[in-house]
Amino acid sequence: MPVSLDTLNSSSRDEFVAALGGLFEHSPWVAEAAFDKRPFATVAALHEAMMQAVLDSPRATKIAFLKAHPDLAGKAARAGDMAPASVSEQAGLGLDRLSDEEYETFQRLNAAYLNRFGFPFIVCVRRQTRDAVLASYEPRLANDEASELARALDEIAHITRLRLIETVEGPGMPATAGHLSTHVLDTYHGEPAAGIRIELFEVGLSGRARIAEAVTNKDGRTDAPLMHGKPLRRGRYELVFHTEAYFRRRGVALPDIPFIGDAVIRFGIDQPEGRYHVPLVMTPWSTATYRGS
Amino acid sequence: MPVSLDTLNSSSRDEFVAALGGLFEHSPWVAEAAFDKRPFATVAALHEAMMQAVLDSPRATKIAFLKAHPDLAGKAARAGDMAPASVSEQAGLGLDRLSDEEYETFQRLNAAYLNRFGFPFIVCVRRQTRDAVLASYEPRLANDEASELARALDEIAHITRLRLIETVEGPGMPATAGHLSTHVLDTYHGEPAAGIRIELFEVGLSGRARIAEAVTNKDGRTDAPLMHGKPLRRGRYELVFHTEAYFRRRGVALPDIPFIGDAVIRFGIDQPEGRYHVPLVMTPWSTATYRGS
Amino acid sequence: MPVSLDTLNSSSRDEFVAALGGLFEHSPWVAEAAFDKRPFATVAALHEAMMQAVLDSPRATKIAFLKAHPDLAGKAARAGDMAPASVSEQAGLGLDRLSDEEYETFQRLNAAYLNRFGFPFIVCVRRQTRDAVLASYEPRLANDEASELARALDEIAHITRLRLIETVEGPGMPATAGHLSTHVLDTYHGEPAAGIRIELFEVGLSGRARIAEAVTNKDGRTDAPLMHGKPLRRGRYELVFHTEAYFRRRGVALPDIPFIGDAVIRFGIDQPEGRYHVPLVMTPWSTATYRGS
Amino acid sequence: MPVSLDTLNSSSRDEFVAALGGLFEHSPWVAEAAFDKRPFATVAALHEAMMQAVLDSPRATKIAFLKAHPDLAGKAARAGDMAPASVSEQAGLGLDRLSDEEYETFQRLNAAYLNRFGFPFIVCVRRQTRDAVLASYEPRLANDEASELARALDEIAHITRLRLIETVEGPGMPATAGHLSTHVLDTYHGEPAAGIRIELFEVGLSGRARIAEAVTNKDGRTDAPLMHGKPLRRGRYELVFHTEAYFRRRGVALPDIPFIGDAVIRFGIDQPEGRYHVPLVMTPWSTATYRGS
Repeated sequence: MPVSLDTLNSSSRDEFVAALGGLFEHSPWVAEAAFDKRPFATVAALHEAMMQAVLDSPRATKIAFLKAHPDLAGKAARAGDMAPASVSEQAGLGLDRLSDEEYETFQRLNAAYLNRFGFPFIVCVRRQTRDAVLASYEPRLANDEASELARALDEIAHITRLRLIETVEGPGMPATAGHLSTHVLDTYHGEPAAGIRIELFEVGLSGRARIAEAVTNKDGRTDAPLMHGKPLRRGRYELVFHTEAYFRRRGVALPDIPFIGDAVIRFGIDQPEGRYHVPLVMTPWSTATYRGS
Repeated sequence: MPVSLDTLNSSSRDEFVAALGGLFEHSPWVAEAAFDKRPFATVAALHEAMMQAVLDSPRATKIAFLKAHPDLAGKAARAGDMAPASVSEQAGLGLDRLSDEEYETFQRLNAAYLNRFGFPFIVCVRRQTRDAVLASYEPRLANDEASELARALDEIAHITRLRLIETVEGPGMPATAGHLSTHVLDTYHGEPAAGIRIELFEVGLSGRARIAEAVTNKDGRTDAPLMHGKPLRRGRYELVFHTEAYFRRRGVALPDIPFIGDAVIRFGIDQPEGRYHVPLVMTPWSTATYRGS
Repeated sequence: MPVSLDTLNSSSRDEFVAALGGLFEHSPWVAEAAFDKRPFATVAALHEAMMQAVLDSPRATKIAFLKAHPDLAGKAARAGDMAPASVSEQAGLGLDRLSDEEYETFQRLNAAYLNRFGFPFIVCVRRQTRDAVLASYEPRLANDEASELARALDEIAHITRLRLIETVEGPGMPATAGHLSTHVLDTYHGEPAAGIRIELFEVGLSGRARIAEAVTNKDGRTDAPLMHGKPLRRGRYELVFHTEAYFRRRGVALPDIPFIGDAVIRFGIDQPEGRYHVPLVMTPWSTATYRGS
Repeated sequence: MPVSLDTLNSSSRDEFVAALGGLFEHSPWVAEAAFDKRPFATVAALHEAMMQAVLDSPRATKIAFLKAHPDLAGKAARAGDMAPASVSEQAGLGLDRLSDEEYETFQRLNAAYLNRFGFPFIVCVRRQTRDAVLASYEPRLANDEASELARALDEIAHITRLRLIETVEGPGMPATAGHLSTHVLDTYHGEPAAGIRIELFEVGLSGRARIAEAVTNKDGRTDAPLMHGKPLRRGRYELVFHTEAYFRRRGVALPDIPFIGDAVIRFGIDQPEGRYHVPLVMTPWSTATYRGS
């Protein structure tokens, strides 16, 4: 159960560090440094103060802090030797259930990264699909050391921001949620398409997995966004709209195998905190989509 | 090597039947009947005369003729007991390489059909994907006997027309070819998109298989149609346009994971002899398609 | 100043008739009949009761009631012999400022209508453009008498509903307002187009008149709908979007004379109380629109 | 009647100059200089040789040559003191039929230009609408002298190229023709829209003029391009497609005032020798267009 910002603002140093000391991997000193900056008007300000403590620390401290992090999909993930938050985060992406071949790939990339920069590869996995994580090693290995140190700390900011909002509640929560919505317009009848079944798939290199399903309401939208309330995972997606059933139900004459049967939109998400609106404008003979708003 | 229509028009009855007797499964009497209608001005007219001989025959003869056909994906396909043309046709659709489960499905449907109508299920497999064949049993089982007899003979017409054009050459070949083409318009730059790699997949219930690949020329079209020169197989297809590489090559700033990466159009083909033009109109943020011409 | 529904529900018969007697042209008996149905829970119920009194009256009374209405754009409009509400309504469409030729056209059509049906042509002019009024004579002259009597009373319902909502205020106002909005999506940049100047024109046979102007906000929408709060006039319209200035401001390289300069959408409104959303999806080389929602 | 290139290649100097001396305004020396370069393999090469003679001449000669040209829409146009080709060209754009106000505008701009550069404003009017000509003074007045001298000579190249192809016939005619075509796709029915009446308007600041009309054939195209065989005039245009009549004819249920009645595409032409394909993709509830190919 989250602790309130008010409580933290009036707690003792020990209570404060007990509550927040685990957010920055094995590094309670970050919470201690933030304690001196109290009170915080917003939860976002509390997070900024903790990150600032990291950014203000000497380079050697930063490196030591980064080295306190487990390898991604590494031995720690298999052996259970991670901070509890890391366990849950890596499990969310299935990084604890890799095939041997996938495990070897991650081990090889992790080793190359560690060898290049002297600290483990760090990424906020809750903002990434597994393929996006894999694809990010190569460009990051090409960075220079200063850029990559900044990048690692930026990932830390994302990781800890997400941990913080599960730990503390109060005014001014930092913005961490993305948004994916759709809208189906039937330009055969000139109205929103109601009752269309929609499936959302995450599309990986080795297959695709259905991650959401919905049916359009009478305004052609879904009652709730397809994804919301947390970061969108960077990656590639596919929306499948079951338009054939819709048009048959409405009595439109279609060929046995219609030209547009299940309308498919494949698209990418690059901004985990972004707002993605992906409409479908369609007849039995045409489809169009665009990044809407 | 095909025989010319001129040769057939002037050959003896024996030669004529030797050349054409195999077109109608185990039924050289069809060629014999057509012999009496010579000469033929066109290859299409020759085919019509042969089909007319079948249509003019008594019901019992028609049934016997249909019964001379092998089961689709049946024991004959496995045991090698089919007319050579049937062997090749069924192999084209992979009906000789079914899993045991698929084989059982076909056996069960074939038995139901034979039981219902008294003759085997006949379909011109060269005009169908495997899924389209499977999907056609159910509606045909619901037909009445007269409709289904007519339907079976219509399939025979398609089968034998395709066999005939490989056997005879001459003026007035019957129309058996469909046509699938595409065109990529880049509305970011306002011009045809050149150098886009395109893949065409056949999409089945259990997976998809790449059946063609092409690159757009400077008019945004492919040098040759994606499919042409023979019937299109009724079924579902997917076109994948590698637009990300195109826009990056042209120096357009894209997110690491672009909104439109590989543009995907899923569409159906219902008319094997039809003309399908499937354009893509796109920017890095939008796609549109329609059945063109 | 409007009277409240509460006041009407508790007023004397004379006060009630004094307040509402003028709504139905020269026919205070309608208000008197409604008085007996008090109290009314909603303003809409009050209107329905008044209309029901008309519908329940004998045919001869209905005809007499209709005959109490002035000719559209007729002598009364010029001579000032109309109920005050009619004066204002006809003036709103410019029917008091016709050229002699237009006046003659209306006179001729009015005479033909009166001769055919025995009562004047009645239309709720606040729901029509002038061209739509003119175009409606011909199909209505072709109606049979019963249909046209019903149609005339339906127009009366619209006329008096609009008069009522200016006279009475209270819960449950009847729905009389339409809605026209737009949204501009820039698929060159993949975002809403902000700062686009938009002009709305009413398009008549003899010209067009600008009736609204707006600029898109950062969501690509206008801060207020282009038309709202009252019925839309049935007719033809044109939206002009000044996209050239927008793209030049953003530094997009355009030809001196761009392919899409001012994007134009011409569209029709058929339902005065309808909701019309008319988006523009565009690049410097493409435009698309559809009836949205 | 044109003279053949062969004839010119074998004619005497006097004959050659007699045939071509009038192409370059009051400057037969250009033809004389080209005479020495004979023979010419193509008509285009002949034109290039003549232009090269101008470009190779000293600056003072160039200026004198330019000064030999009449003012655009100037006194000469009214008084009849121009080379015959200039008379015809300026009349084509209506520059001999200006209102007094328009005449004054041209006089003022011409005077400003002459004052700035020392030679008259020269533009190939056959490649421009009147509005495009008017709009081009301001940016050209802002050019430096060297750029504007080059620009004036480029206009001379266009003017004389068009004169030459009316004077000489032979192999290798220079490319001077633009092309405007359209294509109407009906995505309600999934096929080309046949029988749609199309009007093409030139849109000016003060009005619009219909310059072409056509009806779509069964492929949804017009039998001939809307404009072809000569340069397109730079300017703004409007295509009006009479889609309401088309859909009513096909029995599609439409509102009395349809959402899309006459579909309108307003577009600009910047390249007189360009290929403009402007398709319409539409239903009764949607339209889309783009620069096609």
